[in-house]
Amino acid sequence: MSRLLTGSLLLLALCGLSAAQAPPDSVPASSNMPGSDYPRIHPDLRVTFRVSAPVAQKVQLVTGSDDNGLGKGPFDMVKDEKGIWTVTIGPAVPGFHYYWLSVDGFAANDPASQTFFGWNKESSGIEIPEKGADFYEAKDVPHGEVRAHWYYSKISAMWRRIYVYTPPGYDNGRTRYPVLYLQHGSGECERSWSNQGRVNFILDNLIAEKKAVPMLVVMENGMVAPRAGAVAPAVPGAPARRNDAFPDVVVKELIPEIDAAYRTLADQPHRAIAGLSMGAGQATQIGLGNLDKFSGIGSFSGGGIRNFDPKTSNNGVFADPAAFNKKVPVLWFGAGTVEAGRMGGGKTAVEAMNKAGIKAVWFESPGTSHEWQTWRKCLYDFAPRLFR
Amino acid sequence: MSRLLTGSLLLLALCGLSAAQAPPDSVPASSNMPGSDYPRIHPDLRVTFRVSAPVAQKVQLVTGSDDNGLGKGPFDMVKDEKGIWTVTIGPAVPGFHYYWLSVDGFAANDPASQTFFGWNKESSGIEIPEKGADFYEAKDVPHGEVRAHWYYSKISAMWRRIYVYTPPGYDNGRTRYPVLYLQHGSGECERSWSNQGRVNFILDNLIAEKKAVPMLVVMENGMVAPRAGAVAPAVPGAPARRNDAFPDVVVKELIPEIDAAYRTLADQPHRAIAGLSMGAGQATQIGLGNLDKFSGIGSFSGGGIRNFDPKTSNNGVFADPAAFNKKVPVLWFGAGTVEAGRMGGGKTAVEAMNKAGIKAVWFESPGTSHEWQTWRKCLYDFAPRLFR
Repeated sequence: MSRLLTGSLLLLALCGLSAAQAPPDSVPASSNMPGSDYPRIHPDLRVTFRVSAPVAQKVQLVTGSDDNGLGKGPFDMVKDEKGIWTVTIGPAVPGFHYYWLSVDGFAANDPASQTFFGWNKESSGIEIPEKGADFYEAKDVPHGEVRAHWYYSKISAMWRRIYVYTPPGYDNGRTRYPVLYLQHGSGECERSWSNQGRVNFILDNLIAEKKAVPMLVVMENGMVAPRAGAVAPAVPGAPARRNDAFPDVVVKELIPEIDAAYRTLADQPHRAIAGLSMGAGQATQIGLGNLDKFSGIGSFSGGGIRNFDPKTSNNGVFADPAAFNKKVPVLWFGAGTVEAGRMGGGKTAVEAMNKAGIKAVWFESPGTSHEWQTWRKCLYDFAPRLFR
Repeated sequence: MSRLLTGSLLLLALCGLSAAQAPPDSVPASSNMPGSDYPRIHPDLRVTFRVSAPVAQKVQLVTGSDDNGLGKGPFDMVKDEKGIWTVTIGPAVPGFHYYWLSVDGFAANDPASQTFFGWNKESSGIEIPEKGADFYEAKDVPHGEVRAHWYYSKISAMWRRIYVYTPPGYDNGRTRYPVLYLQHGSGECERSWSNQGRVNFILDNLIAEKKAVPMLVVMENGMVAPRAGAVAPAVPGAPARRNDAFPDVVVKELIPEIDAAYRTLADQPHRAIAGLSMGAGQATQIGLGNLDKFSGIGSFSGGGIRNFDPKTSNNGVFADPAAFNKKVPVLWFGAGTVEAGRMGGGKTAVEAMNKAGIKAVWFESPGTSHEWQTWRKCLYDFAPRLFR
């Protein structure tokens, strides 16, 4: 039996085969709760959702995105005589999609699926396998760990939890490692890159194939203020804790914490920063704003740099292209081909940079949208370029 | 501003004070989603829950337990003209309580609270502070880490994820550490002891006060079969994977994995096992069944040993009390005083053991039930006794 299957995948594949009345050839999603036969994925990647709600008047299915192949909905589910509601939609784009139910207008999770922190709440999620793609699966290779690590931040006046990927072998040596700081998107959190993004399996696989150098990956919660954009202290006398304090948290608190707690190569050539969507904005802002700290910068679905001008953009850091290229050997922008806005902006900016002599890289994930399959593929292309 | 407050607590305390129409003196629960003003806890520990569901006909609140002070419900919530439903119940027993909503009969999570894996699903949870008790809070002391670690189990034919607490300083030395194997309850998972149980903060605090020796804590998912009790292979040819294979997974696979991956003291005097409820049964079964492996055994809310007979119980391991006491210096049973069944069984068994010359310990958590505050207090009493 192949070790490629993750535990839950295997578990559910087994359960699924015993499901009565299951549509032929369909299989339970790997993101289902243990023992749940639904949601089920058909060979053509249509998905059947099923839920019991005998008393409800109207049950609908809603997804987090317009362009995941499923559509955003709401899709009316159909009730049978036992109060079971069903709908089949799609075919889905491969990857990870947030979704939820609307039960008489109330947004509820599907009890049959795992939940993932997205859209600023715990949302149901479904994993749609991509045929032939296993770069983000648990394979029979050495595995690193993902550590929850706590530190006190004076700037944000709170204990902050970070997730840190340590590569295979970290514990059994004295080697020092380069560090990638990797940020989630809006409405997500420090758990997202490991839960939804599978950062650990992607790095395990890249390192096993010697496609990437072993590195630490640090995942912070990019939110500093109680709500994004909040500026005023909610309590008289309390420090104003603005979300735009995040760059200060990273540079003045997080990096020193990581360099003290882990065996890092604590210098600019061995430090990179990347992020997705909102996190892409943070990565370019923090990275380009601190060229003495970062030699690699990655923007996943973050658009580009608006009205790029080599002389004036980002306080003139691009003004001497040769010097910039030497200082920042990896400047990387990517997006999914289905996310029109980010695609255009990123590509245009990279073309302008290249024209100006800046060696920026442009990457496209075919057929995927503003979703995790795009960002998994971004990481898979970006990480191997670092620290060479 | 006190560092005692965890980040979310602080965040929400700040938000809460700006909430319009909030009941006077009440505060948002620390388990709320960032920015959520409800649920709110009153000074007398009554709790007000509030949710928006304008279209629903009936919204109720349900909790996971009869004796948490809130009651099990369902409690009818009352709708206002804007479709906001509210109910105030309690006063609650301090600690952590699972709960959910019934929206026109459908069991839905409260979008305002964090979710926790319990009752075999992602359930809402609420944390009720205990006056004067901070042993499970993040304090200004050195913090250990909680690591997600993967290993392949041939017995269960799957990649398994373990959570491992490593004490402060683990990374900066060559010290070897004793190991406590610690199991969750039925319907929970390997994340429960850190998420609901706060094992890391409890150990951090005990170690800082020199009340417990630094140790590793290993948390496995106690489920091996697709469903508890399942015995037949669901796929022809696949190995039968029974949940009663769990002791084999622990002894033949988990312990060797931990001793290979971490700097452990890999012998019987430096290895203990404990668990709560279902996990207590697993801990006593595995511990008493492998006295060459474990010198400490803890049963949290597991009852006792039925019809204890020193000559015959557990295959006669108690037949020579002096030899047993020497081999197992810590045999520990505990429960909350409100959980009648477990209380009586445990106390009776310990009395019978003591009468027979077995130095078993009995512990009671005053006023708490079959819930996490009991288990946090069990751990806080049990862990300091280990590895002395």
